[in-house]
Amino acid sequence: MIETDIDLLKGIANQLRIHSISSTTAAGSGHPTSCCSMADLMAALFFGHMRYDAKNPKYHNNDRFVLSKGHAAPILYAAWAEAGLFPVEELQKLRRIDSDLEGHPTPRLPFADVATGSLGQGLGVGVGIALAGRLDKLDYNTYVLLGDGEIAEGAVWEAASLAGIYKLKNLIAIVDANRLGQSQATAFGHETTVYVNRFKAFGWRVEEVDGHDIEEILEVLSGVGINDQPLAIIAKTYKGGGVSFLQDKDGWHGKPLNKEEAAKAIAELQPTAKSASGVAIPTPSALPAPANATPSSYPPINYKLGDLIATREAYGTALVRIGEADQRIVAMDGDTKNSTYAEKFFKKFPERFTECFIAEQNLVAVAVGFGTRGKVPFASTFATFFTRAFDHIRVAGISMANLKLVGSHVGVSIGEDGPSQMALEDLAMMRAVAGSVVLYPSDAVSAEKLLEVMASTRGIFFLRTSRPKTPVIYGNDEKFPIGGANVVRQNAGDKVTVVGAGVTLHEAIKAADALAKEGIGITVVDAYSIKPIGKDVIKAAAAKTNNLVVTVEEHYADGGLGDAVAGELSSEGVKVHKLAVRELPRSGKAEELLAKFGIDAAAIAKKVKSLV
Amino acid sequence: MIETDIDLLKGIANQLRIHSISSTTAAGSGHPTSCCSMADLMAALFFGHMRYDAKNPKYHNNDRFVLSKGHAAPILYAAWAEAGLFPVEELQKLRRIDSDLEGHPTPRLPFADVATGSLGQGLGVGVGIALAGRLDKLDYNTYVLLGDGEIAEGAVWEAASLAGIYKLKNLIAIVDANRLGQSQATAFGHETTVYVNRFKAFGWRVEEVDGHDIEEILEVLSGVGINDQPLAIIAKTYKGGGVSFLQDKDGWHGKPLNKEEAAKAIAELQPTAKSASGVAIPTPSALPAPANATPSSYPPINYKLGDLIATREAYGTALVRIGEADQRIVAMDGDTKNSTYAEKFFKKFPERFTECFIAEQNLVAVAVGFGTRGKVPFASTFATFFTRAFDHIRVAGISMANLKLVGSHVGVSIGEDGPSQMALEDLAMMRAVAGSVVLYPSDAVSAEKLLEVMASTRGIFFLRTSRPKTPVIYGNDEKFPIGGANVVRQNAGDKVTVVGAGVTLHEAIKAADALAKEGIGITVVDAYSIKPIGKDVIKAAAAKTNNLVVTVEEHYADGGLGDAVAGELSSEGVKVHKLAVRELPRSGKAEELLAKFGIDAAAIAKKVKSLV
Repeated sequence: MIETDIDLLKGIANQLRIHSISSTTAAGSGHPTSCCSMADLMAALFFGHMRYDAKNPKYHNNDRFVLSKGHAAPILYAAWAEAGLFPVEELQKLRRIDSDLEGHPTPRLPFADVATGSLGQGLGVGVGIALAGRLDKLDYNTYVLLGDGEIAEGAVWEAASLAGIYKLKNLIAIVDANRLGQSQATAFGHETTVYVNRFKAFGWRVEEVDGHDIEEILEVLSGVGINDQPLAIIAKTYKGGGVSFLQDKDGWHGKPLNKEEAAKAIAELQPTAKSASGVAIPTPSALPAPANATPSSYPPINYKLGDLIATREAYGTALVRIGEADQRIVAMDGDTKNSTYAEKFFKKFPERFTECFIAEQNLVAVAVGFGTRGKVPFASTFATFFTRAFDHIRVAGISMANLKLVGSHVGVSIGEDGPSQMALEDLAMMRAVAGSVVLYPSDAVSAEKLLEVMASTRGIFFLRTSRPKTPVIYGNDEKFPIGGANVVRQNAGDKVTVVGAGVTLHEAIKAADALAKEGIGITVVDAYSIKPIGKDVIKAAAAKTNNLVVTVEEHYADGGLGDAVAGELSSEGVKVHKLAVRELPRSGKAEELLAKFGIDAAAIAKKVKSLV
Repeated sequence: MIETDIDLLKGIANQLRIHSISSTTAAGSGHPTSCCSMADLMAALFFGHMRYDAKNPKYHNNDRFVLSKGHAAPILYAAWAEAGLFPVEELQKLRRIDSDLEGHPTPRLPFADVATGSLGQGLGVGVGIALAGRLDKLDYNTYVLLGDGEIAEGAVWEAASLAGIYKLKNLIAIVDANRLGQSQATAFGHETTVYVNRFKAFGWRVEEVDGHDIEEILEVLSGVGINDQPLAIIAKTYKGGGVSFLQDKDGWHGKPLNKEEAAKAIAELQPTAKSASGVAIPTPSALPAPANATPSSYPPINYKLGDLIATREAYGTALVRIGEADQRIVAMDGDTKNSTYAEKFFKKFPERFTECFIAEQNLVAVAVGFGTRGKVPFASTFATFFTRAFDHIRVAGISMANLKLVGSHVGVSIGEDGPSQMALEDLAMMRAVAGSVVLYPSDAVSAEKLLEVMASTRGIFFLRTSRPKTPVIYGNDEKFPIGGANVVRQNAGDKVTVVGAGVTLHEAIKAADALAKEGIGITVVDAYSIKPIGKDVIKAAAAKTNNLVVTVEEHYADGGLGDAVAGELSSEGVKVHKLAVRELPRSGKAEELLAKFGIDAAAIAKKVKSLV
C-alpha cells in the first residue's frame, strides 16, 4: 500500500465522520460518537481491504460485513454511499419514516444481511455465514465489527467458541474498543489485554491495533487467513475519535450534536476529508454460485393409520427425506440431536449438519447466518430451550430471516424430567415474533407434511414436536396448508367444538369417544396451524355447536392455543373456554401429569359436560 | 486431614453413587452416570469442606451450593439424605409425582435455592448469592457445580466476567469435566487446559484437579478465599466414574441402569461404600442475620394532575422512595441505567446497586440470586432486552423466585431507534411465565403505586414502562390492586368499551374526546394489570356497551393485552376487537408510528365507528 493511499483512507475516514455527524444532527437523534471511533476501521475495510461489488451488495462472492454494534448505523450507511451504492444526499434522511436508513440497520437495505442493534448477536450470525461459505466452497471472508461494551454478552462467547472449534479462518471479528458504554465506562476500559486473552482462550488468533492508525489496521488485515484460526482484531479507539471536543469524553453516548456543535466538528474534519469516489475497491472472485434451487416435489411418505410414531421422530425422518431432494437444507442442533431426532439428518448428511453444542443463542444465530446465504436452516433443540434464544429469534423477525426452528419435548407429557425441560411458554413466545408461522403436528403424517411446507416457504417457522408416540390419524395424501385446521370428528348435533393439537388432540379424540357413549357429541378440530390460526375452519365448526368452543393445550393458559383462538374469534361471538396448564407442573408420569393439570380426556369430558 | 478421613470420604462417595444408581433405576429414568462423575467432589464438599447446618438448610450462615448441572439431581438428594436432612429411603421415590425429589431440583426442596436443569444458569445465580453475602457482611461461600458441556452456554461467561470484575472471592465454580455430553463428546473432551485458560482470562484463579482424588480436591478447597479472585476448580472426571462398565463409556447419558446392571454396579461399589452418618460437618459462623423486614408503609407521593412525566422516570423516583423505607431493596441494570432511570437508585444507594453491564441473562440471574437471600431485587433494562433472558425468567418461575423486572422503552412510541429497540413481544413473554404478575402503568402515580405493590408482594413481577412523557391522570391516593383495572371515562349510553394501557390509554382518552364531539360515547378502561387481567372491571364495563370491547396496545397482536382480555372474557360472551401492531415497524417519530401502525387516537376512533 503506497503512502498516498493511506492519506486517502484517512481522508475517507473523516468523510465518514462528517456524514455520521451531519446525518444524526439532521435526524435529531443517533450515535455519532460511536461512529467516529470506528471511522478509520471502516475506511480501511471498505476502501482498502474488503473485496466486493459495491453496486451489487448481494453478489455471492462479496466479502460480508456485519455491523454487530448496530447503533453505529450512520457510518455503515455512509460507507455504502461513499462506495457508490446510493447518493450521499440520501444520508440526510436518516431515521425518517420515509427512509430505509433506520436507526439500526435492517435488511430493508440490500447490504444488511441481518438486523442488528440488539447487541452481541452479530458474531454468531457471522459464524453461520462463514460456515456457509465453507460449505459452498466460496472464498469470501466475513467481517464482524463489535463494540467493546457488547462483548459482555454471553452470545459473543458462544459464537467465539464455535468459531474456534471449527477453525473458521474466513471469519474476522473486529472489536472497536472505545472504552465508553452507554451509562458508564466499560468494565475494562482500555485494558485491551483482557479481550486479547479472552479471544485467545477461545481459540482465536488475536491482533491488537491502534484503531486510528490505518497503516497498522491494513497490515493486520493483510494477514487474514494466514493460519487455520479465526482472527480477532482488538482495536483501541476513542469514542468520538477525530473530533477534539468529543474524543474520549463521557456523556456523549447516543446523542446527536446540535447544529452549532456539528458545524464546529465538521470544520475540524473538513480540511482533511476526502471523497471515496473513484477509489478502486478490490474485486471479489468469480467462483460459481451454489445451486440453491427449490425442488418441485419431495419423495412420498408411506404411513399406516394407527402407526405409533412420535412427531419428534417424524421430524428426523422428514428432514432426511426432504433434505435428499433439497440441497439447500442444512441442520444444526445444541447437543440434543439424539432426542430431537436431528441425528438422522446428521448421519445422512454430516457435511450439512453443524453441531452447535449447548449454546442455543448461537444455534439460532448460526442458522440465521446460513439463511442469509440461500440455505434453508433447520435448528432443533428442546422447545423450551429456544427461550434461551428469544432475543435472537425476535431479531430474526426484524431480519425477515429464512429460519426454521423445531422444538421437541413440549408440555407435561415429557413426564419425569420435570418443569425445567417442559415447553409451556413456547407458543406464546413464537406467536409474538414478527412474521412467524407456528405449526404443531399431532401425528407423523402432519409432521412430515408440515415440514414440506416449512422447507418450501420462506420465513420464520416454528414446528412444535412431542415426546410421546401418537397414532397416525391422517392419510398420506392429506394437505396441511398454513392457516388451516382439520375437523377430525364431527357429527350432526354436536354440542361443543373441542380444539386441540399435538398430544391434546388425541386426548380430545378419546374424550369424544367417551362422551359419545354418554350421548354427547363433540366436534374435534386439529389446530395444527397455531399462527396463523385456522380461524375459518374453527369458526365454521363452532357455528354448528352454538359457538361453544373448548381449547385444550399443553401450554400455560397465557399466550398459547386458547388465546390464539379467543383472540381471533371472540369478535365473531365465539365463546372460548380454555383448558391449559394453570400451575407450575412437576415430575411424574405423562398420563398422571396430563390428568393432574387438567388437560387429559377426562378433563375435556368434564369441561364439555359443564357446558351442555 | 488424617488418612482415615480420606477413606471415609471415598466410602461416602461410593455410597452417593449407590444412591444415584438405585434411585434412578427405581424411577426408570434419570442420569446416574452424570452423578457418578461428581461423586468424589460431592463427598469432599458436603462431608469434608462446606460449613452448614444439615438440619437447617436455610440457615443464613450456611455455605450455599448450587447444582448448575441439575440433571445430576439424584446425587444432590443423596448428599442431603446422607447429611441427615431426610431418610435415605426417601430417595427411592425419585421422580414420582408424590415426591418433591423431582427429575431436576426445584425449591420445593428446602436445600435448592433455585431450580436448575436448564443448563448454564447456576453460576449467575451464584454471583447474586455471593454479592448478597458481601452486602450483608456474612462469611458464607457459594459453591456452584457445573458440567463441562454446559459451559458452552454464554450465560456462564457473562457470570464469570462479572465475578471477575467484582472480585468475588466468596464464589467457587467447580467444573465436572467428564468429557461426554448428551449426544456426543464435548468439543474439548479432557483437554481441560481450554477451561483453565478461559476462566483465567475471565479474571478467576484456577486450579486443576483429578476429580476422583479426594485428597487433591480437599487441598484445593482449603485454599478457598486466599486471594481476591473467584476460584474455578476444573476437575477432570469420568462419566460413570467408579463403575467399571460405565466409566468413560459413550451412550450412557440420561439412561438408568436396568435392575441387573444396577445390581452389578452396586456390587462393585458396596464393599468400600460408607454411610455419612455421624460425620462431623463443619459448623457455619454465627454472624447475625441481616434485617430483612418489610416496611409497614412508604413515604407519600405528591404529583399534580396533568404533570408530564414518563413512567420510566417515575420508576426511578419510586425506587428511591421505596428503597429509603425498605432496606431489602437492591437494584441492578445492564448499562442502560440512564435510560431506565435506575440511575436514580444507583446514585442514592450505590452499595445496593449492581452494574451488570450488557449481559441481560446474568442481570436476571444475579437478581434471582439476591432474591434467594431475602432481598427484593429490581432488575431493569429496555423491556425488549429481557427477551435475551427469557429462559432465565422462565426458570425463575420454576424457582418461585422473588424477582422484579422493570422494562422500559416499549412499543413504537420509542420512535427513531427502530424495531430492534422496541418491546412488542414482552407482554406475551412475561404472561407466559409461571406465577408471574404483569403490570403496565400509564402515568407517574400508577407507576409509583404499582412499584409499592411489587416491592411488598413476593413473586415474579414485570413492570412495563414507556419512554414518552404522559400526563398524570390519577390522584395521589388512587389504589392499584393486582388484577384490577380502572374505568377512567364512562357515561351512560357509551357504545364501546376501549381498553388501553400505557401510551395507548392516553390515545384512547383522546379518541373519547374526539368521538364525544361526534356524539359517540365510549368507556375507557386502564388495564394497568395485564396479568392477572382486570376481568371483573372490564366485564362490567363491557356489559354496559353491548359487550363490545376494543383493545389497543403497543405490542404485536399475539399474546398481549388483546389476547389477555379475549382469552379471559370471550367465554363470557364479550366480543373483543384488537388494535395492535400487525407488521414489522420501522424508525420514525413516535406519533407517526402510532398512526402508521394503527394504534393512535384516530385509529381507535375509526375502529369504534366501524362497530357502532
